[in-house]
Amino acid sequence: MSGTLADQLRTAKVYDLEQPRFAGMPIYPTHKPGYFYALHRRHRDSYKPETSGPRTGASGSLFMMEHSGTHIDALCHQACGMKLYGDVPVEKVETTAGYLQLGIETVSPLLGRGVLIDVAGWKKQSPLPNKYSISADDLASCSKAHGVEIRTGDVLCVRTGYGSLWHDEAEYLRAAGTAKSGSLWAAERGVIAVGIDNMSCDIPEERDPETGTTLFGHYYLLPQKGIFIIENLNLEELARDRRYEFAFVGIPLKLVGATGSPIRPLAMVAPLS
Amino acid sequence: MSGTLADQLRTAKVYDLEQPRFAGMPIYPTHKPGYFYALHRRHRDSYKPETSGPRTGASGSLFMMEHSGTHIDALCHQACGMKLYGDVPVEKVETTAGYLQLGIETVSPLLGRGVLIDVAGWKKQSPLPNKYSISADDLASCSKAHGVEIRTGDVLCVRTGYGSLWHDEAEYLRAAGTAKSGSLWAAERGVIAVGIDNMSCDIPEERDPETGTTLFGHYYLLPQKGIFIIENLNLEELARDRRYEFAFVGIPLKLVGATGSPIRPLAMVAPLS
Amino acid sequence: MSGTLADQLRTAKVYDLEQPRFAGMPIYPTHKPGYFYALHRRHRDSYKPETSGPRTGASGSLFMMEHSGTHIDALCHQACGMKLYGDVPVEKVETTAGYLQLGIETVSPLLGRGVLIDVAGWKKQSPLPNKYSISADDLASCSKAHGVEIRTGDVLCVRTGYGSLWHDEAEYLRAAGTAKSGSLWAAERGVIAVGIDNMSCDIPEERDPETGTTLFGHYYLLPQKGIFIIENLNLEELARDRRYEFAFVGIPLKLVGATGSPIRPLAMVAPLS
Amino acid sequence: MSGTLADQLRTAKVYDLEQPRFAGMPIYPTHKPGYFYALHRRHRDSYKPETSGPRTGASGSLFMMEHSGTHIDALCHQACGMKLYGDVPVEKVETTAGYLQLGIETVSPLLGRGVLIDVAGWKKQSPLPNKYSISADDLASCSKAHGVEIRTGDVLCVRTGYGSLWHDEAEYLRAAGTAKSGSLWAAERGVIAVGIDNMSCDIPEERDPETGTTLFGHYYLLPQKGIFIIENLNLEELARDRRYEFAFVGIPLKLVGATGSPIRPLAMVAPLS
Repeated sequence: MSGTLADQLRTAKVYDLEQPRFAGMPIYPTHKPGYFYALHRRHRDSYKPETSGPRTGASGSLFMMEHSGTHIDALCHQACGMKLYGDVPVEKVETTAGYLQLGIETVSPLLGRGVLIDVAGWKKQSPLPNKYSISADDLASCSKAHGVEIRTGDVLCVRTGYGSLWHDEAEYLRAAGTAKSGSLWAAERGVIAVGIDNMSCDIPEERDPETGTTLFGHYYLLPQKGIFIIENLNLEELARDRRYEFAFVGIPLKLVGATGSPIRPLAMVAPLS
Repeated sequence: MSGTLADQLRTAKVYDLEQPRFAGMPIYPTHKPGYFYALHRRHRDSYKPETSGPRTGASGSLFMMEHSGTHIDALCHQACGMKLYGDVPVEKVETTAGYLQLGIETVSPLLGRGVLIDVAGWKKQSPLPNKYSISADDLASCSKAHGVEIRTGDVLCVRTGYGSLWHDEAEYLRAAGTAKSGSLWAAERGVIAVGIDNMSCDIPEERDPETGTTLFGHYYLLPQKGIFIIENLNLEELARDRRYEFAFVGIPLKLVGATGSPIRPLAMVAPLS
Repeated sequence: MSGTLADQLRTAKVYDLEQPRFAGMPIYPTHKPGYFYALHRRHRDSYKPETSGPRTGASGSLFMMEHSGTHIDALCHQACGMKLYGDVPVEKVETTAGYLQLGIETVSPLLGRGVLIDVAGWKKQSPLPNKYSISADDLASCSKAHGVEIRTGDVLCVRTGYGSLWHDEAEYLRAAGTAKSGSLWAAERGVIAVGIDNMSCDIPEERDPETGTTLFGHYYLLPQKGIFIIENLNLEELARDRRYEFAFVGIPLKLVGATGSPIRPLAMVAPLS
Repeated sequence: MSGTLADQLRTAKVYDLEQPRFAGMPIYPTHKPGYFYALHRRHRDSYKPETSGPRTGASGSLFMMEHSGTHIDALCHQACGMKLYGDVPVEKVETTAGYLQLGIETVSPLLGRGVLIDVAGWKKQSPLPNKYSISADDLASCSKAHGVEIRTGDVLCVRTGYGSLWHDEAEYLRAAGTAKSGSLWAAERGVIAVGIDNMSCDIPEERDPETGTTLFGHYYLLPQKGIFIIENLNLEELARDRRYEFAFVGIPLKLVGATGSPIRPLAMVAPLS
């Protein structure tokens, strides 16, 4: 490998892992209405060539929940026993405008190695069955079949195949997700983030008998392990090209105090690799 | 240089060029109210450990203009004679939900070489005087002094020094900006984007006598040359370290039809370079 | 009748014609997402009795379309051949923040006589069949059966019975509405407003063969006759009590430039009448 | 007095007590950004006369705080020792979407007698001096001079004269307001609501030494006495005509769970009175 970092970025093959954002895209009921963009400043409004010259501008306004579309969860998004990650009591850091600690603005860009575990492709069923629960065994067997090792510091991307259903909210919300054992397995590998092509990573209907929690992955990864969750990825193209290992770039916005951020993650592969 | 692209990204020194986003950050009058985030789902709201287990979630809602904070302009943001870039008539592509062509979702991630022209540092006056108009001569002389060449495909970052005044809207809105000659000079170099640490790139009060336009850079770069504009960069740390050449990563969100996107651009330098 | 106006208002029986407003109430697809309220300033946030005393405040933010819930349409809401009421060309008065003429802030409070034509009650089918088209004959026969005369200056309230389905968007959007002949009949009577207990007054699927227009009532009443339309009324209690004639109070908010306003209309009946 | 209630409403002289609503109107810092309306559906967008007929529609979206502009406070807006009116514990009724009790949707329309105490007119200083604190003595002496008695069930309107400064936020926020003694006096009279032509009824800088509370009126009237507060009235015309007694009509919207509502109150006087 040679050339400057800039050269390598410029010439890399880039996979865009973000779903398009539009009013009507799937959204978890808790986060309705999700997303709305309205163009209100129109070019015509300011077009007065005689007095103001030929130039005009247009722009709009955006109303959105931070957990709409492809997004990353901040650590303050989830609590366990009213404690955030690092045993920070919720009450100490919660304000009307967001959190004083562990807000999304504190998250460094995710830059490093990414791996894809294409469960749907490996099982030759894409998408996976509705509410299929991806276990540690699935992840271990599938990554072995791919010949890819998960390492400390990786961003782990799990594919259910539901990313192809982004225009069908009803079906998208019935997606497969990670089982408790899958979340534990990922954490044991030391990944810094788990990304997935569904709405809630976990399967909303599942409840862990041991802890009594729903959304075990949210319960375990964010407040207990400090591992980020990225949802609503589009992993279709990556799977089609069988790219199981890549450079991952995921850059949250610094929305001060917010519990998450929209994100457009990229997977990059050097031209000759 | 060696190692995989992932290794290089992981070990690079990263400069964060985004200003933090919060209600009350500077905003151009046209784009008021700019930004508002409210936390409304609180952890306490769903904390019922006996029946629902120990986990709770929190989240909020965001109201923002797409030209608030550090952001990139889509080509549809500006028109000249009611034509967008490529002579696309505004009327053909304008809808209530944004533009059918040249919306921000059509912009590929900006990945490649970035250069800094630190005009404020070079003139030893940071920030530059209010409304100081940065000319082609300034850019040429300053880049020469830095020993940095601007090449086709670069992202050109111009520093006025006003990035240090992000908490002072009144003063920030009196920032220096690029003169007509500066915008022409940048376009001649073949850059793909011009970034700057002020609100409007151009100086709002300046009007070009030849064309009658205000905001000459907006008039020329976007609808005529297809060159993107990035505003409200934070170039302070980059300037302090005298990093005039770097890998640039700027990834707009795919807000379908929108005229711009918030962005958190990064400048990266390989560890040994 | 005796006593001051204040006494009479105080002692009148009051019928509340507004539907409750909440996220998830029915909304016409064009006006999605309709309504969203989030409480974000909580009492707990500012509760510091030692230093700030015992008082605390709470408040929220509201995102809504002006045509959500029970609302009144401004004359600028509809145009015919790009002309507003009074032949005002749309282009002359349209701005990014609304209309310079005929905005809702120009509408005086509606204070006077109201009449109810309870078509659903009269036909002994409440609600009326889906998409039932209420004709001039229906209105004439029904008002005759009620023994109520429609006079110049009245607010005419037409009941389809769908007001009882406010919690069921799918069914509510299949409501009965006024036919072309019904709108013509109302205008001939000289009413100042037509109110109805459905989403769009007209039946969206109907198209007038003569003019080619959809929503004939919107086409005719607002831009051609200057008659206001009030939608999503709750006329259930009024119908139950067979109040076909009453004092009507409808007070739009002065949202400058807006095309409509939420409204809580009242029907009032003097105690002994 | 004769004629039906409808006739009387129709022929009454009406005073409009609402200030116009627009982006940039004064707003209390806590409730920034206050109000924003954007027209985004334009008539031109759907104008296709050949295929869709001559009719077109326009509409917009509204982002607002419920305590912006002329508005009424719900009882849940203020708490004392974390208790709402009637000793309702905040924690029992607070949700992410507002309050389960004492929300603005529970407030009946205010219909009855209104009285004006024009302190600014009586003192022949309109507006009153900045931050002038209106005492019980002021209210008693002024109402006596007006020859108007305050009765149980009245809506009491207090005029500072700052309603004439609605276009000047800085000056408007320095308005006169009610002193502690003024709030106590109003409550003793048994009024159901106190309205005023300023932003916060009380003077924000004042703190009651006895209870340690700021905004004594908010502390006392809402959570302890169940008396509503209406802010940002326009009482200019009423004062000019020396109308000290009138019929009052104030109708909050039923924003479920919200802590207040925009309102357009009216004062009405029978034609011959």
